[in-house]
Amino acid sequence: MLKDLVKKNRSYRRFYQEKKVLIETLRELVDLARLSACGANKQNLRFILANESEKYKAIDENVFWAGYYTDWAGPIEGEKPSAYIVIVKDITNGKGTPQDEGIAAQSILLGAVEKSMGGCMIANINRKNLQKELQLNEKYEITLVVAVGYPKETVIIDEISIDGDIKYWRDENDAHHVPKRKLADLIL
Amino acid sequence: MLKDLVKKNRSYRRFYQEKKVLIETLRELVDLARLSACGANKQNLRFILANESEKYKAIDENVFWAGYYTDWAGPIEGEKPSAYIVIVKDITNGKGTPQDEGIAAQSILLGAVEKSMGGCMIANINRKNLQKELQLNEKYEITLVVAVGYPKETVIIDEISIDGDIKYWRDENDAHHVPKRKLADLIL
Repeated sequence: MLKDLVKKNRSYRRFYQEKKVLIETLRELVDLARLSACGANKQNLRFILANESEKYKAIDENVFWAGYYTDWAGPIEGEKPSAYIVIVKDITNGKGTPQDEGIAAQSILLGAVEKSMGGCMIANINRKNLQKELQLNEKYEITLVVAVGYPKETVIIDEISIDGDIKYWRDENDAHHVPKRKLADLIL
Repeated sequence: MLKDLVKKNRSYRRFYQEKKVLIETLRELVDLARLSACGANKQNLRFILANESEKYKAIDENVFWAGYYTDWAGPIEGEKPSAYIVIVKDITNGKGTPQDEGIAAQSILLGAVEKSMGGCMIANINRKNLQKELQLNEKYEITLVVAVGYPKETVIIDEISIDGDIKYWRDENDAHHVPKRKLADLIL
């Protein structure tokens, strides 16, 4: 059931870094994005795959995790994602539709979950630095980074409390809690 | 396999309009969006569901289909989608991340395909008119309309030709062809 995949597809931020993710596996995930919809079928997204080497390091150093955890600088060595996919957009003919990268990232992460992996979409990126360090042509704009790996943390979906606070939080066992609004509150 | 769903999840534009889609079914699809990621977990998207009545009519009259088919004004009566989901964003506290609606729409349509339905994300919308006709509060911004129904057309994924033309086209049997770039060309 898709719903099981969607439920398991949480934003994971700690991983079994020692479990490798092959470039071939990342290519299979990108193929899901390739076959997904995009604005006017323009297919302007491109993908940079990294599971080790300098490229991985450059990406890892330029992404910022979990804005609400002000006392947590991101996953420590040993708990980092095994791979990253950088989604960039060819803006030669304009910026296109902003939905494209969300659609692509969702297909990629649902595919990762199906393969017993998981990940996180990261939009807080030092784009200028990363563009430079990846020696990325100016015609490409970095949209999102998708971390991919084997999740080492428990993520629990909670019903939102009456104060309406949407900030995620970690409990004493390091389980990550995500308050979600009720379905009835999302339908106008 | 998710890949089968992704492949079947084409942008469908002609439907068996006589096959009804219940509001309860639309709610199940929105629940998939609810459980999907969004920027900083802000959950600013809201959903308007319509399968008949004035609301459906207002939506139907304010969406524009298939930009590349300049001689086709959209599905005729009898081939229209059975339902629409309008995805709006509560912009009270800012516009949030533009990826949210793409993620939500992708979850919704993958869910529709799993239920033997299909649909189309529509970004070409007379937003001003629709906002007015739905009597939508100013704090909501219309992002996407998702058509949902039982597809009546065949959609064929073709490999892109050497001239690189990405425009979809209809053949003599009214099958809709979508040229997709090769995976190797998407990976930098």
